[in-house]
Amino acid sequence: MGFRAAVAGASGYAGGEILRILAGHPEIEIATVTAGSNAGALLGAHQPHLRSLAGRTLAETTPDTLSGHDVVFLALPHGQSGPLAAQLGDDTLVVDCGADHRLADAAAWERFYGGEHAGTWPYGLPELPGHREALRSARRIAVPGCYPTAVSLALVPAFAAGLAEPDVVVVAASGTSGAGRAAKPNLIGSEVMGSVSAYGVGGVHRHTPEMVQNLSAAAGGPVTVSFTPTLAPMSRGILATCTAKARPGVTAAALRDAYETAYADEPFADLLPEGQWPATAMTLGANTALLQVALDEAAGRVVVVAAIDNLTKGTGGGAVQSANLALGLPEELGLTTIGVSP
Amino acid sequence: MGFRAAVAGASGYAGGEILRILAGHPEIEIATVTAGSNAGALLGAHQPHLRSLAGRTLAETTPDTLSGHDVVFLALPHGQSGPLAAQLGDDTLVVDCGADHRLADAAAWERFYGGEHAGTWPYGLPELPGHREALRSARRIAVPGCYPTAVSLALVPAFAAGLAEPDVVVVAASGTSGAGRAAKPNLIGSEVMGSVSAYGVGGVHRHTPEMVQNLSAAAGGPVTVSFTPTLAPMSRGILATCTAKARPGVTAAALRDAYETAYADEPFADLLPEGQWPATAMTLGANTALLQVALDEAAGRVVVVAAIDNLTKGTGGGAVQSANLALGLPEELGLTTIGVSP
Amino acid sequence: MGFRAAVAGASGYAGGEILRILAGHPEIEIATVTAGSNAGALLGAHQPHLRSLAGRTLAETTPDTLSGHDVVFLALPHGQSGPLAAQLGDDTLVVDCGADHRLADAAAWERFYGGEHAGTWPYGLPELPGHREALRSARRIAVPGCYPTAVSLALVPAFAAGLAEPDVVVVAASGTSGAGRAAKPNLIGSEVMGSVSAYGVGGVHRHTPEMVQNLSAAAGGPVTVSFTPTLAPMSRGILATCTAKARPGVTAAALRDAYETAYADEPFADLLPEGQWPATAMTLGANTALLQVALDEAAGRVVVVAAIDNLTKGTGGGAVQSANLALGLPEELGLTTIGVSP
Amino acid sequence: MGFRAAVAGASGYAGGEILRILAGHPEIEIATVTAGSNAGALLGAHQPHLRSLAGRTLAETTPDTLSGHDVVFLALPHGQSGPLAAQLGDDTLVVDCGADHRLADAAAWERFYGGEHAGTWPYGLPELPGHREALRSARRIAVPGCYPTAVSLALVPAFAAGLAEPDVVVVAASGTSGAGRAAKPNLIGSEVMGSVSAYGVGGVHRHTPEMVQNLSAAAGGPVTVSFTPTLAPMSRGILATCTAKARPGVTAAALRDAYETAYADEPFADLLPEGQWPATAMTLGANTALLQVALDEAAGRVVVVAAIDNLTKGTGGGAVQSANLALGLPEELGLTTIGVSP
Repeated sequence: MGFRAAVAGASGYAGGEILRILAGHPEIEIATVTAGSNAGALLGAHQPHLRSLAGRTLAETTPDTLSGHDVVFLALPHGQSGPLAAQLGDDTLVVDCGADHRLADAAAWERFYGGEHAGTWPYGLPELPGHREALRSARRIAVPGCYPTAVSLALVPAFAAGLAEPDVVVVAASGTSGAGRAAKPNLIGSEVMGSVSAYGVGGVHRHTPEMVQNLSAAAGGPVTVSFTPTLAPMSRGILATCTAKARPGVTAAALRDAYETAYADEPFADLLPEGQWPATAMTLGANTALLQVALDEAAGRVVVVAAIDNLTKGTGGGAVQSANLALGLPEELGLTTIGVSP
Repeated sequence: MGFRAAVAGASGYAGGEILRILAGHPEIEIATVTAGSNAGALLGAHQPHLRSLAGRTLAETTPDTLSGHDVVFLALPHGQSGPLAAQLGDDTLVVDCGADHRLADAAAWERFYGGEHAGTWPYGLPELPGHREALRSARRIAVPGCYPTAVSLALVPAFAAGLAEPDVVVVAASGTSGAGRAAKPNLIGSEVMGSVSAYGVGGVHRHTPEMVQNLSAAAGGPVTVSFTPTLAPMSRGILATCTAKARPGVTAAALRDAYETAYADEPFADLLPEGQWPATAMTLGANTALLQVALDEAAGRVVVVAAIDNLTKGTGGGAVQSANLALGLPEELGLTTIGVSP
Repeated sequence: MGFRAAVAGASGYAGGEILRILAGHPEIEIATVTAGSNAGALLGAHQPHLRSLAGRTLAETTPDTLSGHDVVFLALPHGQSGPLAAQLGDDTLVVDCGADHRLADAAAWERFYGGEHAGTWPYGLPELPGHREALRSARRIAVPGCYPTAVSLALVPAFAAGLAEPDVVVVAASGTSGAGRAAKPNLIGSEVMGSVSAYGVGGVHRHTPEMVQNLSAAAGGPVTVSFTPTLAPMSRGILATCTAKARPGVTAAALRDAYETAYADEPFADLLPEGQWPATAMTLGANTALLQVALDEAAGRVVVVAAIDNLTKGTGGGAVQSANLALGLPEELGLTTIGVSP
Repeated sequence: MGFRAAVAGASGYAGGEILRILAGHPEIEIATVTAGSNAGALLGAHQPHLRSLAGRTLAETTPDTLSGHDVVFLALPHGQSGPLAAQLGDDTLVVDCGADHRLADAAAWERFYGGEHAGTWPYGLPELPGHREALRSARRIAVPGCYPTAVSLALVPAFAAGLAEPDVVVVAASGTSGAGRAAKPNLIGSEVMGSVSAYGVGGVHRHTPEMVQNLSAAAGGPVTVSFTPTLAPMSRGILATCTAKARPGVTAAALRDAYETAYADEPFADLLPEGQWPATAMTLGANTALLQVALDEAAGRVVVVAAIDNLTKGTGGGAVQSANLALGLPEELGLTTIGVSP
């Protein structure tokens, strides 16, 4: 085991997923697990599926408990990682699964999250143009949001290839784990089973500016994104239906070609064969984003559907993938493209 | 009981829902139930939830078994109701839950369904401008598709009020009962539970021309619709996220006002109070369409979310609502706005 | 409308179900809805599926707000209905959906619930021998627990007919609404979807003494019940698998005959045809208990499977059924045997 | 890679699970995948979650295509593995996930499965007394059924320690993948979601004689088993509630002690800490059986609850675990105790 890791927020869903992956990682050792109000408890009380780690005790999340590790994964509510990370050594790799360091635009941060912006870190989506190289030397990494991961992988190739107009409409369905582990009345099983519901409608969801940021960078100019998230009756998974107005003259063949080219060598972005459409269950527990594209000629729109596991590629797996790069390890180490299905 | 009814396709989901509603209807008596390959069986073998009808025997679906009723509900695969209805008397009310008579454009029928177009019947969505009056004297009714029901109720007021540009993007999630009762490998529980998937992407779903027809009528000119259906892990329900480019100068207040006005007196289209968003479970077994609207100013889009029960308002309830009108009964008779929840 | 009703606990699941049923009841008018911490809110904020009642305001649950009604339904946490009911007039029909007045044995109450026993009321399960008549003159009714409803309907006929030894093992699966609406970490959707779990194992579940009470009465002597409840990933429904050691010489025909005889005239207890087994979905929203019996000759056990909707026959529907009797109304008024399916 | 494997029945659920595990196995290489009616197709068309194997072509399942491998996994409908295995070389390790070679009693085979009994192979449940050693030298292995895996792990320690009388009642809930991948009307998503149902009631389920066989061996005499399987709305998982009459004088401490002793060194049978009860989701994709025990003193019964993933420990994982032993590899190789949760 080359590297010692601490995971903060280990009793939550994002923290649990990082631990699940690290437990099978050949080069990263889980040295410390920490929590907030659950500190002092055994990990097994909160993450009973992590059998081999069940006897670990949750330490408190403080700069002290987190110091002295090669890599620290922060899986904390937004607003908490900024001040905490500032107290960790510069030579420690800090991987923030929260939103604090994702946005380049401080004004957007303040509008969508409130409070002071903590600054911008290298963005942990190696599949985006130029990002992989930046991550190799990073000591700080901002893991993307789950929705922006799916949407960016879905639409960046179309924009990068000049096939889409900057008029984007995204509707995405997410499993309930995306809403975290806090017990809220609208998230109890009786409410969510057998039901799909909308929330954060009208451009108010916090992941919107992150999508705008990524797609605008790919388009080389401002892109508008109408984003509607919905909650689906499943624990994990995001299915993002992403459409953009097609540039004049775009053909279905050119569209497909752009994605084949973009993802030919990507280990974790996978264009399905023609005729096969993504389902979230195909990605359960896998670090893969599955994609399929279509050109709707009558409506003049590019339609790209992306499926990911919101906790794996959308959070914990993406975090480990970027950490691998920053630690000089093979990017795929400890990660799988194979889902648990059915 | 004033009227005697026959239900063809009584062993399927649409037929079962019509029977469920009629079993509590004070003025329509279930006289005959028919089926195709299930003819001869007891209804209870196929619809065990309909306890009071369990001992009925399924007759064969033929012009003979269906004749001699005041109203005939056809819940058959598309293409079958056209020839069958042609053999039923002109004074019998025939309510077709299939697609055969929905489209005005024969070319669209041939492109999306294949075969010869059976003709166009009065369209059973009383909430659309002018439709209620047409239904009062109808002897033939084409019940709308489940997706077009949700989408039309969601967007017609915006177009009728001149608030939207004819550039529409719809992504809708449907429960699996929308795919019918045939046992297909992709519909077995192990495949659909825990998973959201896309299908019919790129404008190829058969309900697309029906949406175009209804929205274009409301807009007074051609509307393009990019429609993506998705399958969600629930038996019933449609949640349709419907967006249209906003006309310049549209305000959130004007948008809300248009919907309040449009649906103030509608028994089965219900704009939720501000801040509350539709969930499909709120409509389970009810004939209600629940709606909420937002203006996404940054993206320049009107966003309307509609929830219905695809089998009730989207099929069987809508069928009975229109039949009530045609039979001279109160429109709400035998129908409820109250869902079974949680 | 002959009778005016108040529903206390109207923002919870049991209260919501009573309201759903009363909203369609021709002889009981919903005059007052009350709540605890949700008092002051609109009912629509908590029960958005009850469209026609959405504008009602929740009053506080007090003797004052509940007085002056013909019938008061109490849907409160256990321990609260005892003191409250004591302050309601003797001529008011009080129907308690809580546990406070179900047990005849004060010691059993104290052992399983703690605190002082509030007394024993007529038990609201008209299908049990002698109970229907007692309910006709009752002014106080204890609505059975959801599990005891299913288990008693499943096994009482076998004991009453002398076919079973007093050695009972019951394992039941319940939907999550049985655990109420409080937001607890183990009940959030992410935890319960895709999972069946056990709880209250080893005879500690509070419904155990109620089962013992009912089965012992039918057997004419003490019956032991090993009861294990499990939580299933669905909102509603109980499937109870109930086994008892078979008396020597019992035949499958005698067993079936006992159930046919017991339930021949019961509107809400329904023995399925041979070969058909109950599924909870068949009963969704219906007041029906569906039953099937088998004799396992190799194991020497009677096996009876019962399916109910825990909120309908198991709570709100059972409450209205008993209230109908006590109010001198037809027992079936406002109730249906037809489930919402699929 | 030391060993070359063939997997027959690779387009089904059991075959897919074996492939999922072998894809991450460091010493077994997937050389050949075969199917019946799906032969000729790409594996990716049927198992889209197995991304790295998606391009493999399914060969026909014949003695020829399966010959020349170190290990052959048979995931075929019962009755097919007997004749096929007879044509495979004696030095090939054949691991049969079907039922053909599980039962020692030919009469029981004929009664429950019909046809001629194919013979009895070493039984692939290393946790049972004496079985591990037998598997180390085996060239033929009968993988246990999913239900018997859970039930045997749950009750064998109680019988082996002399704590239980031979009077067993088991009720188990299974995810729908246990019913296989064939599209049957009762297995489509619309039917199974939101519903728990019973089937095979009264001792007729084919796994019953296998339970009797294992428990009788542990008890040293005949044990009766009343077994009722139920279908739960989830894709994977079995929760088995297993009760046996307690021997006089048994204490809760003695019971717990027996399980702690039995499973102290077992990698894949895990007694949970007191107070924590198994949920199937804790085991998703893991080879672990999670157990908890209770003594119901009032009812005089030992109650043991076991959770497994029916496709992993219950089929494919159990198959690889036994194959590891037979191939002289570490028993845990390629297997995990860590589930994918939530």
